[in-house]
Amino acid sequence: MRGRGDGGGEGREVGPGTVVTPSAEFPPLDQEELGALRRIGEHWRVPPDGAPPDPERLPLDPTLERSRAEPAPGRFGRLAPIAMFTAGEPGELVATEPANIPGTRAGRALSRCRRAMFGPPLTSAAVLYERMRKLVALPVLSSDLLSSVAYGPEAMLTVLVLAGGGALGLSLPLTALLAVLMVTVGLSYRQTVVAYPHGAGSYVVALDNLGVRPGLAAAAGLMVDYVLTVAVSVAAGVHAVTSALPSLARYTVPLGLLTILVLLAGNLRGVRAAGNLFVWPTYAFIVALLAVLLVGYARAGARGFEPVPPPPVPATEGLGLLLVLRAFASGAVSMTGIEAVSNAVPAFRRPEWRNARTTLSWMIGMLVVLFVGLTVLIHLTGLVPTPEKTLLSQLARATFPTGPWYALVQAATALILLLAANTAFNGFPRLLFFMARAGHAPRRFLHMGDRLAFSNGLIALAVTAGVVFLVFRGRTEALIPLYAVGVFLAFTLSQSGMVVHWHRRRNRGWRRRAAINALGALLSGLVLVTAAITKFTEGAWVVVVAVPLLVLLALAIHRHYRRLQRSLALHPPPDGRRPGPALTAVPLPGAAEPGAPAEAQELPQQVRHLVVVPVARLNRASLRALAYAASLRQPTLAVHIAPEDPEADRFREQWEAWGDHVRLETIVSPYRTSIGPLAHYLEALHASRPDVLLTVVVPEVVVRGPWQRLLHSRAEHRLRRALRALPGVVVTSLPVHLAD
Amino acid sequence: MRGRGDGGGEGREVGPGTVVTPSAEFPPLDQEELGALRRIGEHWRVPPDGAPPDPERLPLDPTLERSRAEPAPGRFGRLAPIAMFTAGEPGELVATEPANIPGTRAGRALSRCRRAMFGPPLTSAAVLYERMRKLVALPVLSSDLLSSVAYGPEAMLTVLVLAGGGALGLSLPLTALLAVLMVTVGLSYRQTVVAYPHGAGSYVVALDNLGVRPGLAAAAGLMVDYVLTVAVSVAAGVHAVTSALPSLARYTVPLGLLTILVLLAGNLRGVRAAGNLFVWPTYAFIVALLAVLLVGYARAGARGFEPVPPPPVPATEGLGLLLVLRAFASGAVSMTGIEAVSNAVPAFRRPEWRNARTTLSWMIGMLVVLFVGLTVLIHLTGLVPTPEKTLLSQLARATFPTGPWYALVQAATALILLLAANTAFNGFPRLLFFMARAGHAPRRFLHMGDRLAFSNGLIALAVTAGVVFLVFRGRTEALIPLYAVGVFLAFTLSQSGMVVHWHRRRNRGWRRRAAINALGALLSGLVLVTAAITKFTEGAWVVVVAVPLLVLLALAIHRHYRRLQRSLALHPPPDGRRPGPALTAVPLPGAAEPGAPAEAQELPQQVRHLVVVPVARLNRASLRALAYAASLRQPTLAVHIAPEDPEADRFREQWEAWGDHVRLETIVSPYRTSIGPLAHYLEALHASRPDVLLTVVVPEVVVRGPWQRLLHSRAEHRLRRALRALPGVVVTSLPVHLAD
Repeated sequence: MRGRGDGGGEGREVGPGTVVTPSAEFPPLDQEELGALRRIGEHWRVPPDGAPPDPERLPLDPTLERSRAEPAPGRFGRLAPIAMFTAGEPGELVATEPANIPGTRAGRALSRCRRAMFGPPLTSAAVLYERMRKLVALPVLSSDLLSSVAYGPEAMLTVLVLAGGGALGLSLPLTALLAVLMVTVGLSYRQTVVAYPHGAGSYVVALDNLGVRPGLAAAAGLMVDYVLTVAVSVAAGVHAVTSALPSLARYTVPLGLLTILVLLAGNLRGVRAAGNLFVWPTYAFIVALLAVLLVGYARAGARGFEPVPPPPVPATEGLGLLLVLRAFASGAVSMTGIEAVSNAVPAFRRPEWRNARTTLSWMIGMLVVLFVGLTVLIHLTGLVPTPEKTLLSQLARATFPTGPWYALVQAATALILLLAANTAFNGFPRLLFFMARAGHAPRRFLHMGDRLAFSNGLIALAVTAGVVFLVFRGRTEALIPLYAVGVFLAFTLSQSGMVVHWHRRRNRGWRRRAAINALGALLSGLVLVTAAITKFTEGAWVVVVAVPLLVLLALAIHRHYRRLQRSLALHPPPDGRRPGPALTAVPLPGAAEPGAPAEAQELPQQVRHLVVVPVARLNRASLRALAYAASLRQPTLAVHIAPEDPEADRFREQWEAWGDHVRLETIVSPYRTSIGPLAHYLEALHASRPDVLLTVVVPEVVVRGPWQRLLHSRAEHRLRRALRALPGVVVTSLPVHLAD
Repeated sequence: MRGRGDGGGEGREVGPGTVVTPSAEFPPLDQEELGALRRIGEHWRVPPDGAPPDPERLPLDPTLERSRAEPAPGRFGRLAPIAMFTAGEPGELVATEPANIPGTRAGRALSRCRRAMFGPPLTSAAVLYERMRKLVALPVLSSDLLSSVAYGPEAMLTVLVLAGGGALGLSLPLTALLAVLMVTVGLSYRQTVVAYPHGAGSYVVALDNLGVRPGLAAAAGLMVDYVLTVAVSVAAGVHAVTSALPSLARYTVPLGLLTILVLLAGNLRGVRAAGNLFVWPTYAFIVALLAVLLVGYARAGARGFEPVPPPPVPATEGLGLLLVLRAFASGAVSMTGIEAVSNAVPAFRRPEWRNARTTLSWMIGMLVVLFVGLTVLIHLTGLVPTPEKTLLSQLARATFPTGPWYALVQAATALILLLAANTAFNGFPRLLFFMARAGHAPRRFLHMGDRLAFSNGLIALAVTAGVVFLVFRGRTEALIPLYAVGVFLAFTLSQSGMVVHWHRRRNRGWRRRAAINALGALLSGLVLVTAAITKFTEGAWVVVVAVPLLVLLALAIHRHYRRLQRSLALHPPPDGRRPGPALTAVPLPGAAEPGAPAEAQELPQQVRHLVVVPVARLNRASLRALAYAASLRQPTLAVHIAPEDPEADRFREQWEAWGDHVRLETIVSPYRTSIGPLAHYLEALHASRPDVLLTVVVPEVVVRGPWQRLLHSRAEHRLRRALRALPGVVVTSLPVHLAD
């Protein structure tokens, strides 16, 4: 029932095209299609050999208006179906909530279950109220970015310490470099948010300015990044907990999977609930880290900022440029999460772009303060990374040797890492939504669940992240090498796209803006290349392989949808019957277009019918099928498949006893199959007259339970499957419900 | 497409009703139904507000005659579909073999695969040639019976030895008793075969004479027996092999399962192939055992028939009546397999009953000779059962200490045990066929596969026996206690039934015949009770529980089919419109029966249509659906489900641009679901006018691969599932094939 395959053009339009709405599943027709539609409509004629049906003369009232005065009792002892609809605008009905509940018992139970877990469904009208204030947006969106200081400095130092304890001193210049990178990319993104006020994700920006493949590459990088954000954040969060409670360390994997499940459930409940749930951990984390910094620097100041020499660590690798670059690339993972804000601009309150930009600035400022502050403090305190305890945990312990403060810091860290994972749950489905709208991802990611969340995207993320977490057994340090490549690919493409953007517009001050974005692109690109090369063997190769594959997959999906759209697009009728003014067009004769193949018949007068009724046996079901077929007043043919000649003769006698009202054709199937010969017979009929549309009327006995289904051959089901591939064969299932 | 639910009456008719034919899937109408059919036919009118369709005026030639001169090229580059049919009698087509091959690529591959494994399909005409000569029937049918001497004596002695080596002497009187039992039951069955020349299975006989529940009890006993025959024979056969080659002992379970698979494959190839394959092992086994007996008795005679004293074995149980009875019941398992002949009477060449009776006599004679001969010889040789080596293996080794003879005996034993398992593969599907025809088993057991074998029954047996074999880890001694109960239940019921049979007929000599059968019933009943009581805790309880459950299941299945038949049975039109002579019946007005609910409309003039077309979006697929609906010239209503009001308005504008040719109803679904509201809307329409038959026309986009299916919402499929439960809603699927 979906029609539109390709929305590629829409992704490129700047403006409301990037707003998330439930209507995205129903894109409008373009002007050309509207014109074709109008011209097709002018040709519409009902076949002339009968009275044209008066569209107003229906045997019942479709508005259900009249009946509502006295609602009919529901057949299944539940809400009367008529009461499930209220009148909307004239000519409109509005479905109430019960109308969404399936009619089967299992379906109703499932529906109750979902409601209990995820809350009652939300109407589409609620989507506007799901916007975020800045003070809510900051914690929800920045958690990804800020939380990465919980593992970013450690990732950098873990690499440096390979060259021995002495190499740790290099962390200071590297930190300075990273701070420059953060500020540059931050400034760069501030410009993007303003330029794309309706959502400035790397995918949209790269698609818009650089083309389809760069756009998809950015999207693939982001998808990988989102999955890794969940896996890494959950791993780091669990690590923060097990640093404080070492006895839990062996439950790392189940704890992590449980966390992912809880996050999924929370997000299936919807955006707003998730936001409110997760506002406080970010603030708690910021406060906790600021407290650590304050107390730490006060202590360091007390001893004249003299660094404590780190314990001697033997070098396992030489201190070369490659090692330093690898440390730099590892530290750069702290920058993952900037994307969250730019992707979520429309989720801000109005004016969206200004609120988003302010939030972004705050986030970047906070990131630089925390990252630089922590790295320098770690240097001053002389800490060395160890596998058992996180550096942050060591720092907190060193800063607060006694009292509940240490535990509070660890709890806040674990919570913000959860929240960071949650950010990915915001971004991933949104990205897939945009991709799906452009035909680059399966259409089902367009659908908003009954809580206004993109349930399919959420589930896809949770499953993928769960698998990644399981494969890497929840070890943060094993996941980090995969991390930087995807996100910096997206950064680089997005900033490059912005350069093209400014160059195209050439507004006032475009050179300055383009320069900032170009610098951002350059630095991001350097980090990307560094990360891909230095960490290739440690795991980055997975991403280097996955991104092109994802791009190819997206292109294949796009090709499929484009083919679908080409097949379904409206075309004006061919030249030979150019439309005159509607009034002068005379009705076409009955067989006006005898040559149109069955699947090209788009006007009632073109359709040539043959109704085929397969009859295995004369009983109430098959007689109903025959009566149904005959009541359509189209040429009708009954087909009987007999296993043996005598059986065929006997059936023909019965047929004559009945009165031979319908032409009967008998097929003897000496191999005792019925579906195969029937399908091939219909194919042969179609081959002999491709312009005749065959309608096969099959009674379908409806049974209650699944065990009863075992007692039936389900011939109707098998026949439909066999006929699906045949062109021009319509299958009509006539339900036969058993009397009790 | 199956119609007939209940054939209960037919099972009771003696005669051709018990012949196995492929036509059993299509039972004829009875007289009452034929009368109803005739009277329904007299009422048949096409609706008067249009020209009645001339049944001869079809747009194409259904006989494919004309087209055959120049066969159209097949669309899929394979055999032209028209060439798949040849002309049969006038008005008949005959499907050739290729017409059975499915049209899809996967289906064709599967079909080729099956053909390679099981041979080309056989036409129904081949069924007559699949009859057996006596010399073929003897080995095929008697293997079950004769092979049981390979484990019967051992089963008896294994129980006796529990009371110490001294108790083994009791085997001689027990053997005499068993010989009497064998002869009595044999005589009894000889009479059954004559009385039921078309198949004298316990199920048929008990059903015919004692009623449904005893019949089903006999059938349940037999089903259990067949399953256990396969499990026990395969276990004993594998044991015969591992007695000779002890290193294979640890592969008992996989060897057994593999054997069951090979038997299944052989039987799926068909009856005759299986017969030829397995003729020689029985004769080899008989010859081998006779050789053992001859040489053994010659040796015993040489030492004056003085029994060798058995090695001292400590008693683990007291020698009580219960133990002796248990030994007797264990020895009686040698009698399983008599059923095979009586069930298979129609598989003999004509005159079936005489050939079957002769074969039966031969079998019983052979059984008594082998059983008595072996037991006495074991006694004379002083052998004692041990778990490692079968008694027969010990006896063969003692008789032929050197040379290849020992290996030959073991090989022949293993082979005949395989063949015995094969007998069950003959009997079980046949029993299910008879049960299915009477509506006591799922209808699919009526269907003959393309090799004229009852594939479904064969597979059911193989799976069940495989599971039993697996659960008991292939240990013969663990399976034996389950064995006797089922088969002697069937014996008892069948013989009792024969007593009733003779009593009812009271032909000449009926008293003598009844007396023989009564004696058989009495002795069988004694064994049954003995076995059930003495072996209850050892495993017989499984059967005691399973038989009633199977009976209840069969009754439930029968109830379901009877309900189906009641729902589908033809009834003459109600009194109000009693049929006059066909000539004077005037056409009824269009709305003659306005009150008939939609699913009770069995005449064309009764059907009141409303065609509903759900339209999600205006494209080629939905316009084709609208054109199709309009071309039927019935009242038509289009329904659009919109997630939001603006979208609904936009759609209505498009609708008007098209020309508003069909009445449109819009439903706003604020919870963004479409299937649920649509289903409930149709239910509401139905509730408001139950006499209107709603035909829902849904376009179905047909995609090629399964991965492409993931890209579609498959709304058509989900809608059909949601609508299935609704009465009076017909679903018409209009296929839309994508252009390449």
